[in-house]
Amino acid sequence: MTTDVPHKRLFLPGPVEVAPEVRAAMSTPMIGHRMSECSDLIRRIRPKLQQALFTKNPVFLGTAAATGFQEACFRNLCAQRALSAVCGAFSERFALMGQANGKPTDTYAVEWGQPNTADVIGEKLASRKYDLFTMVHNETSTGVMNPVEEIARVMRDFPEVMFCVDAVSSLGGVKIEPDRLGIDVLFASVQKAFALPPGFTVLAVSERAIEKAKTVKDRGNYFDFVEMREYDKKDQTPFTPSIAHMFALDRQLDRMLKEGVENRFARHQAMQQRAHGWGREKFGLFAKPGYESVTLTVFRNQNRFEFKALNSHLSATRGLVIGDGYGKIKGSTFRIGHMGDATLGDLNEVLSGIDEFLAKH
Amino acid sequence: MTTDVPHKRLFLPGPVEVAPEVRAAMSTPMIGHRMSECSDLIRRIRPKLQQALFTKNPVFLGTAAATGFQEACFRNLCAQRALSAVCGAFSERFALMGQANGKPTDTYAVEWGQPNTADVIGEKLASRKYDLFTMVHNETSTGVMNPVEEIARVMRDFPEVMFCVDAVSSLGGVKIEPDRLGIDVLFASVQKAFALPPGFTVLAVSERAIEKAKTVKDRGNYFDFVEMREYDKKDQTPFTPSIAHMFALDRQLDRMLKEGVENRFARHQAMQQRAHGWGREKFGLFAKPGYESVTLTVFRNQNRFEFKALNSHLSATRGLVIGDGYGKIKGSTFRIGHMGDATLGDLNEVLSGIDEFLAKH
Repeated sequence: MTTDVPHKRLFLPGPVEVAPEVRAAMSTPMIGHRMSECSDLIRRIRPKLQQALFTKNPVFLGTAAATGFQEACFRNLCAQRALSAVCGAFSERFALMGQANGKPTDTYAVEWGQPNTADVIGEKLASRKYDLFTMVHNETSTGVMNPVEEIARVMRDFPEVMFCVDAVSSLGGVKIEPDRLGIDVLFASVQKAFALPPGFTVLAVSERAIEKAKTVKDRGNYFDFVEMREYDKKDQTPFTPSIAHMFALDRQLDRMLKEGVENRFARHQAMQQRAHGWGREKFGLFAKPGYESVTLTVFRNQNRFEFKALNSHLSATRGLVIGDGYGKIKGSTFRIGHMGDATLGDLNEVLSGIDEFLAKH
Repeated sequence: MTTDVPHKRLFLPGPVEVAPEVRAAMSTPMIGHRMSECSDLIRRIRPKLQQALFTKNPVFLGTAAATGFQEACFRNLCAQRALSAVCGAFSERFALMGQANGKPTDTYAVEWGQPNTADVIGEKLASRKYDLFTMVHNETSTGVMNPVEEIARVMRDFPEVMFCVDAVSSLGGVKIEPDRLGIDVLFASVQKAFALPPGFTVLAVSERAIEKAKTVKDRGNYFDFVEMREYDKKDQTPFTPSIAHMFALDRQLDRMLKEGVENRFARHQAMQQRAHGWGREKFGLFAKPGYESVTLTVFRNQNRFEFKALNSHLSATRGLVIGDGYGKIKGSTFRIGHMGDATLGDLNEVLSGIDEFLAKH
């Protein structure tokens, strides 16, 4: 620790707790990014990451928060007009990337708590005005998980549209198969279900997306898929990457594959059921039934308590913290992240702490 | 270590060796980026970073390689036309950011090994066509250090031009005073003279640059100075930052200030004199006399040996590595980084190893 503040265990919707041995890998003595040791590291990571992401597509290691790759989708893949599905704060940010980068963008927005549905997306794309569709799989502000399988079926009718899925807070905790679903860009922040320290993004990009990018002007350089692919062929990255994160990712992928990705998904499912069963009864969930996130839960507070008082209690009695509501539902909701390496036992401790608090308030 | 390969000490022009206690800070248990602990961390870093960078301007913590901030200069600050000074591979990349982002850009290029000089810059800017000027202070491919003080004096005549200095491989090892020099954006990768793991950038941005950015359209989002400044006022970053790097930076700034920044500069100066004295005699330096870098040296190989053989020898006998030439002078030059926490004793060991090799070849 660099400070005297005792560590609080994180049950936020990210960053989440990082296993001691994965944290330790962040301290690995440094190597040069053009040394063979670094290419070896990339060659170790690649097949494991492809296995964890169910893809044979190129996978890239991004030294940036996932927000940078929201921007990358527009800059690399939109030459015409984008349709962005919006259902909360982070999908709204994804849509705003269009405007911020001078790309004509229409939004399909639903009320917070509702999902974006395949039928509406199909209707909108039927105008044939679009060459990019963006969506967030797991909206971290509302706890809604969008029906990506159904949406993918509709997307089959629009091969001219690049299909970009932000799975920032679900990838690694929920099965998403980009190759089978025809997803062109799938990306995740690593501080969520991958349980690594933040500041790094993993992504799978289809070859057809890379071909499309080659035709898009003014796509910039730092997030250029074409350049990433060129260096990827040499087992390198275009710029000096966060090598510490790569050491940690290598270690964490070993742990994920040792547990087994399907077992990992089952563990996330079990935590979801526990959190939702507990929360439905006591608070009600914010997400529309049938569309609840697997990796985090947004509970309705119903003005029963001040969130700060709850978190102070959890911190003082259990040494842990959960998340406040986000954006316009801050205060009226609160959030628990149950993802990454967290176990049902961990989650039970969180819920017991909240029960204890409620009994006193 | 995550692998069985023994660690090689790095005397590359970056990444460089990271002190064990700074590496250890990379493993600090995680905190949430919206928790008060993270704002506390930013508040600890800010005054120390301002002190190390000789600035009262806002300082930002960038979760990206410095290349991203080369792009940021164009996207935030060029509404009209840019002039980019080019004297090697990295300044060429800086200039290419203009083209990659659809910004009209003229270059002032000199032969590799030569510096960009103030008089030519003044002549070119006198056309009054430009609103952005970019330069690299310390060209890592050629070992040339550009005369930023003289250039800054010329820049005073062009207040309409934003003055952006990439000091990727010099900042922290050489004194640069952005406020006194009127530099609008000054940035550095942390894996060079700051001696941190790569994947993070520190930058000082003038208030006038932030005001200018507000007027520039389509400046994107991930590298938006305006948004960075807004969150900075709340002691936050716009997106989840690399918190591990922030813990390490906090620790390393303590170490830098404990040594004393002026002492640190003197140590870098002493290493430069040693490297240059030794190299001038044996090889000749690539940089024009009077413009040699303080933090790294580019030596002419003169076809005396194969670089790989030299590095294998250094690795086998001393457990250390130096850098090959870069780009079009790969093979005909080689490079030693003498920056960060390296000492004269470390450098002497590197040079002895090379002497040993030369005696056998």
